[in-house]
Amino acid sequence: MDDPDTLADRVREGDLRLHELDDHADPETAAAVRREIVAAETGVDLESVGDYGFEAAEAESAIENMVGGAQIPMGVAGPVPVDGSAADGEYYLPMATTEGALVASVNRGLSVISESGGATARVTKSGMTRAPVFRVNGVAEASEVVEWVADNADALREAAESTTSHGELEAVDPYVVGDSVYLRFVYDTKDAMGMNMATIATREAAGVVEAETPADLVALSGNLCSDKKPAAVNAVEGRGRTVTADVLIPRDTVADRLNTTPEAIEEANTRKNLVGSAKAGSLGFNAHAANTVAAVFLATGQDAAQVVEGANAITTVDVRGEVSASGDSSERSSDGGLYASVSLASLEVGTVGGGTKLPTQAEALDVLGLRGSGDPAGANADALAEVIAAGALAGELSLLAALASRHLSSAHEDLGR
Amino acid sequence: MDDPDTLADRVREGDLRLHELDDHADPETAAAVRREIVAAETGVDLESVGDYGFEAAEAESAIENMVGGAQIPMGVAGPVPVDGSAADGEYYLPMATTEGALVASVNRGLSVISESGGATARVTKSGMTRAPVFRVNGVAEASEVVEWVADNADALREAAESTTSHGELEAVDPYVVGDSVYLRFVYDTKDAMGMNMATIATREAAGVVEAETPADLVALSGNLCSDKKPAAVNAVEGRGRTVTADVLIPRDTVADRLNTTPEAIEEANTRKNLVGSAKAGSLGFNAHAANTVAAVFLATGQDAAQVVEGANAITTVDVRGEVSASGDSSERSSDGGLYASVSLASLEVGTVGGGTKLPTQAEALDVLGLRGSGDPAGANADALAEVIAAGALAGELSLLAALASRHLSSAHEDLGR
Amino acid sequence: MDDPDTLADRVREGDLRLHELDDHADPETAAAVRREIVAAETGVDLESVGDYGFEAAEAESAIENMVGGAQIPMGVAGPVPVDGSAADGEYYLPMATTEGALVASVNRGLSVISESGGATARVTKSGMTRAPVFRVNGVAEASEVVEWVADNADALREAAESTTSHGELEAVDPYVVGDSVYLRFVYDTKDAMGMNMATIATREAAGVVEAETPADLVALSGNLCSDKKPAAVNAVEGRGRTVTADVLIPRDTVADRLNTTPEAIEEANTRKNLVGSAKAGSLGFNAHAANTVAAVFLATGQDAAQVVEGANAITTVDVRGEVSASGDSSERSSDGGLYASVSLASLEVGTVGGGTKLPTQAEALDVLGLRGSGDPAGANADALAEVIAAGALAGELSLLAALASRHLSSAHEDLGR
Amino acid sequence: MDDPDTLADRVREGDLRLHELDDHADPETAAAVRREIVAAETGVDLESVGDYGFEAAEAESAIENMVGGAQIPMGVAGPVPVDGSAADGEYYLPMATTEGALVASVNRGLSVISESGGATARVTKSGMTRAPVFRVNGVAEASEVVEWVADNADALREAAESTTSHGELEAVDPYVVGDSVYLRFVYDTKDAMGMNMATIATREAAGVVEAETPADLVALSGNLCSDKKPAAVNAVEGRGRTVTADVLIPRDTVADRLNTTPEAIEEANTRKNLVGSAKAGSLGFNAHAANTVAAVFLATGQDAAQVVEGANAITTVDVRGEVSASGDSSERSSDGGLYASVSLASLEVGTVGGGTKLPTQAEALDVLGLRGSGDPAGANADALAEVIAAGALAGELSLLAALASRHLSSAHEDLGR
Repeated sequence: MDDPDTLADRVREGDLRLHELDDHADPETAAAVRREIVAAETGVDLESVGDYGFEAAEAESAIENMVGGAQIPMGVAGPVPVDGSAADGEYYLPMATTEGALVASVNRGLSVISESGGATARVTKSGMTRAPVFRVNGVAEASEVVEWVADNADALREAAESTTSHGELEAVDPYVVGDSVYLRFVYDTKDAMGMNMATIATREAAGVVEAETPADLVALSGNLCSDKKPAAVNAVEGRGRTVTADVLIPRDTVADRLNTTPEAIEEANTRKNLVGSAKAGSLGFNAHAANTVAAVFLATGQDAAQVVEGANAITTVDVRGEVSASGDSSERSSDGGLYASVSLASLEVGTVGGGTKLPTQAEALDVLGLRGSGDPAGANADALAEVIAAGALAGELSLLAALASRHLSSAHEDLGR
Repeated sequence: MDDPDTLADRVREGDLRLHELDDHADPETAAAVRREIVAAETGVDLESVGDYGFEAAEAESAIENMVGGAQIPMGVAGPVPVDGSAADGEYYLPMATTEGALVASVNRGLSVISESGGATARVTKSGMTRAPVFRVNGVAEASEVVEWVADNADALREAAESTTSHGELEAVDPYVVGDSVYLRFVYDTKDAMGMNMATIATREAAGVVEAETPADLVALSGNLCSDKKPAAVNAVEGRGRTVTADVLIPRDTVADRLNTTPEAIEEANTRKNLVGSAKAGSLGFNAHAANTVAAVFLATGQDAAQVVEGANAITTVDVRGEVSASGDSSERSSDGGLYASVSLASLEVGTVGGGTKLPTQAEALDVLGLRGSGDPAGANADALAEVIAAGALAGELSLLAALASRHLSSAHEDLGR
Repeated sequence: MDDPDTLADRVREGDLRLHELDDHADPETAAAVRREIVAAETGVDLESVGDYGFEAAEAESAIENMVGGAQIPMGVAGPVPVDGSAADGEYYLPMATTEGALVASVNRGLSVISESGGATARVTKSGMTRAPVFRVNGVAEASEVVEWVADNADALREAAESTTSHGELEAVDPYVVGDSVYLRFVYDTKDAMGMNMATIATREAAGVVEAETPADLVALSGNLCSDKKPAAVNAVEGRGRTVTADVLIPRDTVADRLNTTPEAIEEANTRKNLVGSAKAGSLGFNAHAANTVAAVFLATGQDAAQVVEGANAITTVDVRGEVSASGDSSERSSDGGLYASVSLASLEVGTVGGGTKLPTQAEALDVLGLRGSGDPAGANADALAEVIAAGALAGELSLLAALASRHLSSAHEDLGR
Repeated sequence: MDDPDTLADRVREGDLRLHELDDHADPETAAAVRREIVAAETGVDLESVGDYGFEAAEAESAIENMVGGAQIPMGVAGPVPVDGSAADGEYYLPMATTEGALVASVNRGLSVISESGGATARVTKSGMTRAPVFRVNGVAEASEVVEWVADNADALREAAESTTSHGELEAVDPYVVGDSVYLRFVYDTKDAMGMNMATIATREAAGVVEAETPADLVALSGNLCSDKKPAAVNAVEGRGRTVTADVLIPRDTVADRLNTTPEAIEEANTRKNLVGSAKAGSLGFNAHAANTVAAVFLATGQDAAQVVEGANAITTVDVRGEVSASGDSSERSSDGGLYASVSLASLEVGTVGGGTKLPTQAEALDVLGLRGSGDPAGANADALAEVIAAGALAGELSLLAALASRHLSSAHEDLGR
């Protein structure tokens, strides 16, 4: 191994590329050399970036051309009781963000939810997807391929599952557009977010399709997956966890804690989140679910780019009253409360692998009690999805209440953002 | 001020809430007390989270209930020459991510772009928006309000601009749905991302609307803004910077560096990014633009939740040849090259305010030479948008080439993700 | 001119094509010859198709290869009072459909609206669009073209308006995607639906763009128009008339005439038209606005394929109660009842040209009192849009009430469909 | 029965409503009385409307408040050979429209397709849907209902199929949004378009859900069906027939018959139908598929409002060349030329019931040889879908070629529209 200065010289002289430093130095040294080179070229001392707290070697599977770390403030909201299919108990929600007022907003919402007995949450659908696109000669051939796939589910499953000890192939849904055939493979990836598992398994299965049919693989992802794009296929059919959280808040609590009425919150939700989003041509019928999703994703080592799909969320608010004498459940009375829910169609989370292994991220998952494999497998990721949904619900309630009582920008001003 | 142990006791006893600690201790101490409390309740030692490198006081406008920092590995890609409306020169692209293979992928793409002479980029539209929703009595009143707004642009501008020394109100676009009127205010917010500026200015202007017309404000944001939701209004009309980057890569370079042909990349782009996304009902016609956007956003202190809109991107690829003898520009020949572009409709970036002030984020902006106010005002944020677009273009090229030469999952395996 | 039998023989022998018959016979004879040929080849006597009531010569601008006419049952709904920006008075709504129960449904709704004092309607935006796509060398050139367009609005207007005595160019909105530039031309086409006027004017203006900039026209329509496709650009920005109709129905009327409650209708609207459509990834947040639009379009000679855009509609329903003592703005108007509205974003209608000239269509427009040019120009098409909106509102109310009182399929069964 | 004059008097005096005339007179007389009343009130002689060719009694299941008929010019395009899963042979395509140049355009396209050996077409998916929405207490109950549905598929099928002798329940797909549960029932409705069959069967099954679970039916249609709205759920998952047609046109034929090149058509398709529609936020990636769908729907008695879903179409165009020596899979088939396809996601057609029974509509279906039940059941509707797809493909080719050779508006001018 060369010494740092020599390495820096070799890069400057074009003898080495930045990314080749890993072959000539340990990870910490390589990062230091890169900082030195960047500093020399840009005049910027990367002192803070270089003051990272993890082992560079730990980050090797997460980054290339490493120079150090970005540090993002982390706070906690909660605790909040969540009654889920997997979540069960009280949870502090770790959030990393630079969006002032966000943690305070979620915290206020969680406090109101707690006071109302906690949130209920359920994962109602689950499956990581990968959809390769194949070229065929035309629609007649496309039709044959679709039939072959329907008839050979076992062969595809065998191939796909040969690549993984955990994942299970649950479905292969075909879509034909002219001379392109898209096969959307759906996997149970347990506690892993599962993109890589799904990609590797699908590559194997795609090989079988190519071997047994006239179809030629064009791209292992054909965008019907759909990863990191705001796509209706995810909003409708789900990707990762499809999860809903809800709460029923007593009328008095709305008044005392949120300084408004159930009716005002319902109106804000209808005109903003439903009608406004409708007019906007949106796939997101919510106030700011992406904020909570992003902050928890950053804290817990999820993929930040998958916040895109996390924003495919619908928030509903309904003023509930007592059942009238006639038993007509559509009527309401004055002493009811506020029902609120948030449904996240495509929340892709994992508690093993990827960024979850890094130190701050692992600690955040530990705070939730959800690091590593769940029992049964998949339970930790389910629970994480349910807790995030509860957090998103809190954020929705808090912002809707703020809007309804007109202090959105005041809040930001007060909090100095 | 109480000592930490006393404060922790007071929280445990319910005498203080977590967020009230800031009133009783300096920020570092408050964070330490919170870690102590969370540790006591969850059994998790927040050592890594507590080992942050910024001053807690610096983060006060970015976080509440702070316990420490999330650390995310940062790498650099590039450098790459970018010829923009504001960007001008060679740029290293700082990226913070836990998505293994991402920096390598962008780096490879930037290298190819550099070898082809660099990327061209242009901000073609710019404006931060906020769209309050008002309640009116019905469509007749809605129509009057719309007319009033058209006739009183000056009064609205005066009100809005009274709240800001930098921002300028550029347009107010009305939308009517039944008894709801949405007014989409569009601002030039210079080098600030501008959400807060827009919100505060719009609150003032909304007050004028309420005073002068029968409209009642229901919510300061009516989701036609549209912030952090995947909405067509942004994909079509833009929000923040609308920016395109492109490059023309010689055929030989495609072969030598990307191990494939222009035709194969064009086919992958058409079947995946155009036709596949069309079938998926997507607003994102790209391979993984959100990945680059997210990583640079994290590195440079942008709002991670706004990656949602950053994913409203279209990638185009076109095999270009020599003009034929007949001059028919639609014909191509065998010795042309690969034209590729990525158009980001709604990239919301700032180089002042928000997370840009934190140490690692500020250093990353310094590496780009784009921290703080530009000259003229807005130039730094424009340049940042253009450089991100160049990075996203690099990511698209690299992934499309990988898919075209079939080694997507291999790359991930090799890089150990 | 040959005699019919000879002409039929010549077609059979391949000497003439079907469409060339118009050059060798008068229109009636040509149609008769075609029927004879089709009958001979398929064994189908086209007696009913041949029993049409218009002059074949009148249809020459509407059809080619004419064989006769399709006959579609026509009914009337109403009359209903409409208070519009242009509509003023009572209107019978002519509807042509084969959808049993539809006219009855709209008629019931109009009856309830009439009993509530009639519908209010307003055209809040108007403009026919055409958006050619141009090829440029890259984004730098695209940016220049966009600037040129901004600086040369007058030249474009002059060119466009040179082709038309009625139309006025109101705006040219540019969109850039890589090396494609889309210019969305917006016209006031008065009482004409205006697609052809817009196309011809845009062709002229596009010629100027080609002459003065490096842009090359690829297609006179680049789909940002967007004609006959379900596109967000129309749902958000409008095309043709953007029109809203609403009504406030007393609580007693809802009970007596619709056999349900305002609350039940609101709930059905929220769960079906708002939340259900949200989950479906829809641009149509209504129950069946397309039904009314289609039936009136067929009756009055509009373009049936433009029903596609007519379905970009949002229906809102709001239970309004008495103002509370506290004056709480979240409670509503003084006399209570059911507020309902339907907002059609892109209703493309005309009262001159196209199919409006045919006999049954002209009679239907005469029944509405809206045939030909309005005074001022455009008023008839505005009024037609407002009356259709009132009809669509009626259809929404009737179907929502039927769903709320659970007799959707019963109604269809009773009416024998 | 009263005489017409007496009946007209009774209506004028408010003793009878227009729709009650059917109880007091035979259908022809009732229609005549309505014309008389409308004429008296509006001064419009409904002579043409009254000159209809069908028996009023035949139209009773299709219209209410009948006054007569709308007459729309009908032409024929073709014939064209279609090789389908059900279609087999040469077909004349009957089209009813007032859109001048449309039949000529489709006819030209069909002629080119014929010259290229005909179109290939396949129905790749089929199913009519109805999706009721149920209210539950919250997400916990929603989750129970979803499980119950999964466990009780047989009971639901038995209930649904008890209402129909033809229809078969194929799937029930659940979607949860907060306290709303949507169950999308998918049926094989054979040769019927099937909306009513699906509605009636679903009503029965919904009764079972209500009886056996805590779910309460709110609306028999919850808009996840999704009928007559431009919804992604249909574009992605299909409704009615999902059908693709394609053709490979020799390069010489493109030159000789379409006056352009494969490359120019591909470019127009990419920039307009793919990229332009992407930028427009569209679900329709085609030039004007809705035109052909609408015209054939009107001619053959389909539901005109369902043109909305028919517009969910993707057109692809690909220049195919000779296989290279290297066998590079990115180059194409052996004889070269223009590959074109159109994929209609949700084409709802029937050859029995509804408007197909009326005389001109029945004759048009007879011209196609597709009236009534197919053998096997469903084959006629499949074939109709395939022929319409071939027609839409022809329209796409013809318009794209016109755009590529720049004579769109000229064509309309020449044809006098």
